[in-house]
Amino acid sequence: MDFEFLKKLIVPAQTKIVMLIMDGLGGLPLEPGGKTELETAHTPSLDKLAALSMLGLSQPAGPGITVGSGPGHLAIFGYDPIENEIGRGALEALGVNFELYPDDVAARGNFCSVDENGLLTDRRAGRLPTEECAKLVELLGNIKVDGAEFFLRPIKEHRVAFVMRSPEACDALSNTDPLKIGVADLPVRALKREAEPAAEYVNQFVDQARQVLKGQSPANMILLRGFAKLPELPKFKDLFGLNAAAIAVNGMYRGVSRLAGMTVLDVRGDTPADEFATLEKYLSEFDFFYIHIKKTDTYGEKGDFSGKVRAIEEVDTLMPRLLALNPDVVIVSGDHSSPAVMKSHSWHPVPMLLYSKLVRPDGIAEFGERACARGSLGIIPATNIMPLALANAGRIKKYGA
Amino acid sequence: MDFEFLKKLIVPAQTKIVMLIMDGLGGLPLEPGGKTELETAHTPSLDKLAALSMLGLSQPAGPGITVGSGPGHLAIFGYDPIENEIGRGALEALGVNFELYPDDVAARGNFCSVDENGLLTDRRAGRLPTEECAKLVELLGNIKVDGAEFFLRPIKEHRVAFVMRSPEACDALSNTDPLKIGVADLPVRALKREAEPAAEYVNQFVDQARQVLKGQSPANMILLRGFAKLPELPKFKDLFGLNAAAIAVNGMYRGVSRLAGMTVLDVRGDTPADEFATLEKYLSEFDFFYIHIKKTDTYGEKGDFSGKVRAIEEVDTLMPRLLALNPDVVIVSGDHSSPAVMKSHSWHPVPMLLYSKLVRPDGIAEFGERACARGSLGIIPATNIMPLALANAGRIKKYGA
Repeated sequence: MDFEFLKKLIVPAQTKIVMLIMDGLGGLPLEPGGKTELETAHTPSLDKLAALSMLGLSQPAGPGITVGSGPGHLAIFGYDPIENEIGRGALEALGVNFELYPDDVAARGNFCSVDENGLLTDRRAGRLPTEECAKLVELLGNIKVDGAEFFLRPIKEHRVAFVMRSPEACDALSNTDPLKIGVADLPVRALKREAEPAAEYVNQFVDQARQVLKGQSPANMILLRGFAKLPELPKFKDLFGLNAAAIAVNGMYRGVSRLAGMTVLDVRGDTPADEFATLEKYLSEFDFFYIHIKKTDTYGEKGDFSGKVRAIEEVDTLMPRLLALNPDVVIVSGDHSSPAVMKSHSWHPVPMLLYSKLVRPDGIAEFGERACARGSLGIIPATNIMPLALANAGRIKKYGA
Repeated sequence: MDFEFLKKLIVPAQTKIVMLIMDGLGGLPLEPGGKTELETAHTPSLDKLAALSMLGLSQPAGPGITVGSGPGHLAIFGYDPIENEIGRGALEALGVNFELYPDDVAARGNFCSVDENGLLTDRRAGRLPTEECAKLVELLGNIKVDGAEFFLRPIKEHRVAFVMRSPEACDALSNTDPLKIGVADLPVRALKREAEPAAEYVNQFVDQARQVLKGQSPANMILLRGFAKLPELPKFKDLFGLNAAAIAVNGMYRGVSRLAGMTVLDVRGDTPADEFATLEKYLSEFDFFYIHIKKTDTYGEKGDFSGKVRAIEEVDTLMPRLLALNPDVVIVSGDHSSPAVMKSHSWHPVPMLLYSKLVRPDGIAEFGERACARGSLGIIPATNIMPLALANAGRIKKYGA
């Protein structure tokens, strides 16, 4: 979708769009001739909605391409996930709700263990408890380097988000993490001339961290990798004219939504029911709601077919609450497939349902991969979902006379 | 598909992909309400495989575009056939297994008959026997021109492949063949300034050929057309990480495969059974096999509906041999359609079947145009076939986190 073209056609409206994303929704049968997770799940509410909807399958980054959650979400939000690559460090910082600025360079940090010669003995410091991690982060908070500011946030166990803020910030930096044990950590190298000051600041930080952490156990050093600034994305408000809100429990999804300019809502609790309650609470305040359900992917990646089936069924039982709010447009889909049988993300197109009073319903009273394959939307790039949602919400005016 | 993007995601694997191409596979019914050639053919093995596969239709160069075998094959091999035009002269040389180099300009040559005034009386010299053609080629082998080398190879009857090798080679050259009789052959003109030396060399060759052939009968002159250098294509190994082999009897298909960096295997004999025997023999040595069946197109172009049906049935009887080899991915399709009722290539989308243990099977136990139109692959650009095959072969890693 050409944003410059689309932007000119956007008009205001009083309509509401709800995009319900079950992470890793698409699946595969356990055995030839069998049903997928979604086809197996008992989903009377989704099936009823399907009958009034258009069905189809979406591909986040083209045929055969398996995506991570970052690019998968960019695509369903309408952004080309290949043009807009998000570096891992930036995703990590977004994931803990750190508000990244254009001058920030983020990285993935690991607390690790080194021996008396500075050689790595454990890249994860025995996966130390998260509270320990938080204490070490506090110790490193006192490090001062001229020309740059540093921010660290504990994530989980040994993992931390690292952010350097400086007018000279540049993310063309090599990793300090050698990705193996028995060797020392590496100095940061500038991969471009203009990254030289940034490399110098990070190296000064690492040298001070080495001193500060000396004597700690088991974590007595920190490794950094995946240095990345944010890609610059046009915001939902500017692009689509939407006051958008995100309802997600996990950090990464909250982070990607913020990148798109969504207001990330606080969810009381962490169940799908809590997320639906958040939608009910904030309904009047926004035009667009993205709701993220994590469990479907978690079970898919674990290879737990019936767990994924149950997670889908749980969402189905909540659908009447969503529909009772009378949203003008409802999208139910995923950001990618995660078949339990593969225990991983996969390239398979993702089932999707698009409901509004203005769709031509396919009249297929079933929400599943093969039902969607028969749907009139066909197999579409996931970046087409937003323009279709906007049109059905009366938010795109006629092009030409 | 963006090759630079795809290349970064390619990972090694121990999997095998077999791409079985029946040339001109797609067809049309003889009369309204009838069945196509493929639908008419009794194909129990293909139907059984179809039930476990995804079905769809492929388009080599977009809607409504009828392609020749060159572009049709480039597309199924993953190369954009519009961006990568192969000139006819280059295809002709490749077709006789002449190893073209980047500095070579190839052309299609015809021995012809001229009268005492040099005016053409027969552009094909009565389709002289191929052995006569070979003798004339030998005579022309002695021509010397400063700055360039010349190579000629007999093809069939009056047809020869012509190659000029020179550091100043350029293919922006006009034809000497006026494409009609009663006129003289034309001097070669440079169509760009940088082609001027090449035009001069070819004209010197033609002038000498005129002297050498004087007195021969019926062929006493040579016409050249379709001057072309090779397009540069990235090779299967570099692009897809595949050690690829081609099993084809006809020169053109052997040539196009070589262009893609495939090893062109020797086939003992020229029947489909001989080609399948070649697959069996070399199975362990390559990751990817392209098998080309010519007869389907030959009968299609002749307008022999039942001949094409029989050719498809012959391939069907060989399918158990292919499947006994347990390839991880099997593609069965064509490079374009050649409906017998049209006696020519056509633009109709080409039926295709994609089998692997990881597809979501459509459960349609039939391989035919209309069965494929109901398949979940939809109508896809033929250039999507390779990414899908690679994904199903576990050869594309996840993009992003």
